[in-house]
Amino acid sequence: MDEPTPREMCAFEAGIKLGALFHQFIGTPVSNASKASLEEAIRSAVMNQPYVKRVDVRIKPEVLERASKNAFGYASLTPEMLEASVWIEYRGVTCRGRLAYVEDKRYPLMWVEFE
Amino acid sequence: MDEPTPREMCAFEAGIKLGALFHQFIGTPVSNASKASLEEAIRSAVMNQPYVKRVDVRIKPEVLERASKNAFGYASLTPEMLEASVWIEYRGVTCRGRLAYVEDKRYPLMWVEFE
Amino acid sequence: MDEPTPREMCAFEAGIKLGALFHQFIGTPVSNASKASLEEAIRSAVMNQPYVKRVDVRIKPEVLERASKNAFGYASLTPEMLEASVWIEYRGVTCRGRLAYVEDKRYPLMWVEFE
Amino acid sequence: MDEPTPREMCAFEAGIKLGALFHQFIGTPVSNASKASLEEAIRSAVMNQPYVKRVDVRIKPEVLERASKNAFGYASLTPEMLEASVWIEYRGVTCRGRLAYVEDKRYPLMWVEFE
Repeated sequence: MDEPTPREMCAFEAGIKLGALFHQFIGTPVSNASKASLEEAIRSAVMNQPYVKRVDVRIKPEVLERASKNAFGYASLTPEMLEASVWIEYRGVTCRGRLAYVEDKRYPLMWVEFE
Repeated sequence: MDEPTPREMCAFEAGIKLGALFHQFIGTPVSNASKASLEEAIRSAVMNQPYVKRVDVRIKPEVLERASKNAFGYASLTPEMLEASVWIEYRGVTCRGRLAYVEDKRYPLMWVEFE
Repeated sequence: MDEPTPREMCAFEAGIKLGALFHQFIGTPVSNASKASLEEAIRSAVMNQPYVKRVDVRIKPEVLERASKNAFGYASLTPEMLEASVWIEYRGVTCRGRLAYVEDKRYPLMWVEFE
Repeated sequence: MDEPTPREMCAFEAGIKLGALFHQFIGTPVSNASKASLEEAIRSAVMNQPYVKRVDVRIKPEVLERASKNAFGYASLTPEMLEASVWIEYRGVTCRGRLAYVEDKRYPLMWVEFE
């Protein structure tokens, strides 16, 4: 068995964080009024995890607004609403895990970039 | 402070179970292939909870199929897909908590029935 | 089938909110640094839901501190850490759903009070 | 920006799956009676995700039993209970993401192995 390289570990750790944030928070009740506090809580939660240098989270206001046009004026957080970037630093290697809903795949894609 | 009646307690317990199952499982990766095992796991999980006599769970196949038409052939469990009934018995009182997505409210409605 | 009374509906709605907040957020990475933002996000999320008048959430600092004494300095949110009160108003009736971990039952108990 | 290698992608995808399964299912009501159906549902859910070849999931019976010794005879799924392996195949590269609670770190560790 051969050891993962720092780049492989960086990618692995980035994947963990994206999988975690998606599956922890999808389904959370959210509205224009609570959007900022949810974004901040996701950011702060992921910042706790190992090797995380920075986290950006964005709940897309136009998708949220459309989803909130129902009898009760709020929605459950959906994959379509959520965008995130997580910067990982592992033994001198930095990478950025990204999550964004890709319309033409109809899928919340996750990918990793080395900068 | 006055004590809740058995009917009030029954309704309260039904509410807990519906809130729990919705927020625990929304977001789970699901497909035609895994639908039955997810329904069974939800049912069995809720059966553990106090005062539960019976649980019915249904992931709507037509909604799942539509949502799975994407680049990867599966979806995250959404409020639109999920229907459930939870029967509670509390000190001789029985009630049924229900969850169903109501199209004209665009909302996963929960309600309680005494039979 | 007879209609639930406003008190029964109040209890039902309180139950939904407690089940929801518990199962949405248990497992979230949390530390002293992120505790306040998570409490605020839970509060704001539940405030979106129907008939909610007020929400108090508290992550118990002594339980969190103990759980965070590990190799990475944070914990996953556990039932032992979480206390919450949700005030519901339904057609003039007010009730308070409560969640607290009860040591001698070793269980996160939920109950409802009419005031 | 340089492209991730297949090995880096394999590690990234393994990370996603482990983060996902942990944060989706922690908190689920579980007992001896429902353990097998929850393991099967986790397995089937993760099998849906891209590049997954095989999934092993184990809820540790001795930890579950200890946690279930409470007033209601079941527990919420905790990090201490859960062990999982996810085999990923990405463009001819195979790796295995692993999750296990490590007692002396008091932490649910995730790691990746290339075989």
